[in-house]
Amino acid sequence: MHIELKRGSSTKLYVQIALTIADRIRSGLIEPGTRLPSVRKMTADLGVSLVTVSKAYAELEAIQLITCSQGKGCYVRGTLNVDQMEDVDRTQRNNANGESSTSWNWQMALVDYLPRAQLWRHFDTSPQVRYELHMSAIQPELLPTREIIDSAYRLSSDHTERMAAYGSFQGDRELRQILAEHFAERGLQAAPERMLITSGAQQGIDLVARTFVGPGDVVYMEAPSYTGAIDVFTSRGAKIITVPMDDEGMRIDLLTRLCDTYPPKLIYTIPTYHNPTGITMSARRRAQLLNLAQSYHCLILEDDPFADLYFRDPPPASIKSMDGTGHVVYIKSFSKVLSPGCRIACAIADGSVLTRLVAAKSTADLGSPLLTQKALQSFIQNQYGAYVSRLRDELYSRLCAASEVLEEHATMGVQWRLPEGGLNLWLQLPSNLDMRELHHQSLAAGVSFLPGSACYVGEMDTPSLRICFTVTNVELLCEGLRVLCQVIDRVTPGQGGTVADRLPLI
Amino acid sequence: MHIELKRGSSTKLYVQIALTIADRIRSGLIEPGTRLPSVRKMTADLGVSLVTVSKAYAELEAIQLITCSQGKGCYVRGTLNVDQMEDVDRTQRNNANGESSTSWNWQMALVDYLPRAQLWRHFDTSPQVRYELHMSAIQPELLPTREIIDSAYRLSSDHTERMAAYGSFQGDRELRQILAEHFAERGLQAAPERMLITSGAQQGIDLVARTFVGPGDVVYMEAPSYTGAIDVFTSRGAKIITVPMDDEGMRIDLLTRLCDTYPPKLIYTIPTYHNPTGITMSARRRAQLLNLAQSYHCLILEDDPFADLYFRDPPPASIKSMDGTGHVVYIKSFSKVLSPGCRIACAIADGSVLTRLVAAKSTADLGSPLLTQKALQSFIQNQYGAYVSRLRDELYSRLCAASEVLEEHATMGVQWRLPEGGLNLWLQLPSNLDMRELHHQSLAAGVSFLPGSACYVGEMDTPSLRICFTVTNVELLCEGLRVLCQVIDRVTPGQGGTVADRLPLI
Repeated sequence: MHIELKRGSSTKLYVQIALTIADRIRSGLIEPGTRLPSVRKMTADLGVSLVTVSKAYAELEAIQLITCSQGKGCYVRGTLNVDQMEDVDRTQRNNANGESSTSWNWQMALVDYLPRAQLWRHFDTSPQVRYELHMSAIQPELLPTREIIDSAYRLSSDHTERMAAYGSFQGDRELRQILAEHFAERGLQAAPERMLITSGAQQGIDLVARTFVGPGDVVYMEAPSYTGAIDVFTSRGAKIITVPMDDEGMRIDLLTRLCDTYPPKLIYTIPTYHNPTGITMSARRRAQLLNLAQSYHCLILEDDPFADLYFRDPPPASIKSMDGTGHVVYIKSFSKVLSPGCRIACAIADGSVLTRLVAAKSTADLGSPLLTQKALQSFIQNQYGAYVSRLRDELYSRLCAASEVLEEHATMGVQWRLPEGGLNLWLQLPSNLDMRELHHQSLAAGVSFLPGSACYVGEMDTPSLRICFTVTNVELLCEGLRVLCQVIDRVTPGQGGTVADRLPLI
Repeated sequence: MHIELKRGSSTKLYVQIALTIADRIRSGLIEPGTRLPSVRKMTADLGVSLVTVSKAYAELEAIQLITCSQGKGCYVRGTLNVDQMEDVDRTQRNNANGESSTSWNWQMALVDYLPRAQLWRHFDTSPQVRYELHMSAIQPELLPTREIIDSAYRLSSDHTERMAAYGSFQGDRELRQILAEHFAERGLQAAPERMLITSGAQQGIDLVARTFVGPGDVVYMEAPSYTGAIDVFTSRGAKIITVPMDDEGMRIDLLTRLCDTYPPKLIYTIPTYHNPTGITMSARRRAQLLNLAQSYHCLILEDDPFADLYFRDPPPASIKSMDGTGHVVYIKSFSKVLSPGCRIACAIADGSVLTRLVAAKSTADLGSPLLTQKALQSFIQNQYGAYVSRLRDELYSRLCAASEVLEEHATMGVQWRLPEGGLNLWLQLPSNLDMRELHHQSLAAGVSFLPGSACYVGEMDTPSLRICFTVTNVELLCEGLRVLCQVIDRVTPGQGGTVADRLPLI
């Protein structure tokens, strides 16, 4: 097993080993039932002491990821979600019983560069989940899918010859032109030349990381943050440092002090209706963050999927709109708001940063498909404004409904704050709660959520979870939340079922 | 400037420096007009001697990539294709005259991990190119675009709710089911569970590289090879070793000897109608290659875009079809044959290699768009067979026409072999020919081609070029080839315009 140890780091070696293995197990990259290398073998492979490996394994056993027994060795425990897994797993389980199981054993020793892929494991749910609250998305019935399909058909029919050719690596020119107007209406002046169309925000983040982040480069993120971004920066071997948040977003004062010791290469932020916490960074902090990037000559990656989804007032201006020096790469996803199936986002960047991102895009996939770009083009041009205005009202009514259920049913010690926009609600739970047990019982009761641990870098367990209040209809949402509250109540130690003294943070 | 030097390598340091800078200039990652760091600064940055940097710069000046003058320093020369460049460049040129030019200067020092992106620069052509022979593609009018758009509309209209949700990271299940039948008809048994849908073969190659190839890992490729694959493996910091080819494809005898010294992590091959040479690897060599991978516990990446495009007999069975041990990742692009604009390819892999690729895909972009997957589904199921059979005849007639023109007009010393299938024709030119001048004059005369240097790893110039005989209509093809022959004739030194003694290799 390949584990890159950072000697001389403030994180102890046994913790590094335990965290890496935990990440790989949680990501499904080490399958349940796999026997870990013996302590002796791991000791030799990594060039560390027996004690170090033993402590790492003990740590993993303590959090119930592996189970060890004298003489037999340590095995990865079954995950909760075995029956949720995708085709690939099913084949592998089949093959484990079939003839070709042994012929693939050599692959165990094949080193890879994929230390973590948690997003993957938290995306799908099992068929028995009745209340799907784990995924941050908008209920399909609210999306303008019919209009988008029709518009894709019209535009592609009118230009069949263009559909038959490779498009521009940078993205369809007409779409970029329309997006320029779209952004201008939102206070962000960006010519089409400054844009790169990507296959969703996920690819945008990935392109920035593969281009500018390498092993040991310092990346700052909010704690907690978006699982998919953590996966990306981890896979680049970055030194990820997380910064706590308060009501105004990322604590820039702490960030500044950290930067003195660890100069940043990149600062990743979701300033508006932050995923998962829902917090919005204040205008003051946005300006401070930009200043900081300018002094340190580093990049800011501003991930902004939710800005249009405000419930009362529009959010503060984007950091990119203040950026006259090309320090910000801005990524706007249209997947969440319009069409997850189209996978379209737009990155805005300047100077050679943009040039290099376009080059990286060409190496990654030769450019996004023209068909999906055309699908969104005329909707964004003609119907987006009216659509998103209606959508806001609908989403806000969902939040109010969720809030009512929580106020009525949440157990003592559960804390949350109502976001001003977006799709997510972050619950902080009593600190002595067994999150693994909670997740297990919650899924068994038919409710899925995103465990807080998936949103942190290198934390073993954290008593928090994210639910999305917009992905199901309002009845399922409320019912699911009631069930979740019951399960939390049941799992919380020393909790007699009282619902008093809950602590909504706002 | 960040240059990763491999000390103790058989390639001298000054050559490494020159090659890296040359790659970056050719990829457009260092812009024309940029001043290179002074010899003294470079010396300090890289920790090498003054002589080493001076020799590297002298080398770059000799091949006319930079121009140096006493006291003023060294500047990147203008490329041939300045007016071909994309939007990004235009902005940058505008900005160079505008107010914000200096505010972006800090970006010059921003280290990236993108040493080469030549595919990008060789993809687009200028509007003045009348005969586009550089891009390996099929003339849009021959592609079933109308049918594909209609089918996308039908299938997506029938399932709007599915279009509104995130699809499977692994790819649409129905499409994979249909592809299983498609591959079975071609002697390749692959259950849908073993497949991963990618955004074109380019992304498939990239996913394999980002998952399994890291700095210093040994990757073998044919010499020459596909530019886009070279870009990918270079960006992963691989130690790329190229293996010469003969009439039977990659020289496995040489590869075997090389592997003794440099054990392979991955072997990348295009065994059928190889890009750019058109050569097909014999069945015997395919079996040998698989054996070799089994003994070295390494992966084979079999890139197979052209197998259906044979002109007489079908090609030998794919390497994947012989693979019982999960050593081969097979990638079949449907972009070239059906729809470049849809960006759909299918990777077939086994065991944990597949699992890890699916995880990487989730990190890269959360899965390919459902709309484009649906677009190809019913065409592949119902119409592909008849379509490709007609297409073969048409492509073959183009090759025959091209061959006639070459036989009549090619200058002495120009060599080629007619491929048994595919889209490409590889011309070897007199060794003393100035390729830079040829490319310049050819573009000026309205003919684009892919310079051979783009298909080699770390070679300065090579007297060869690739043309695609299927991308334009037959009149433009023949006319363009005649013009190209004239230009070659004009540029070839000591050539009196005779057309005798040409050497078609077959």
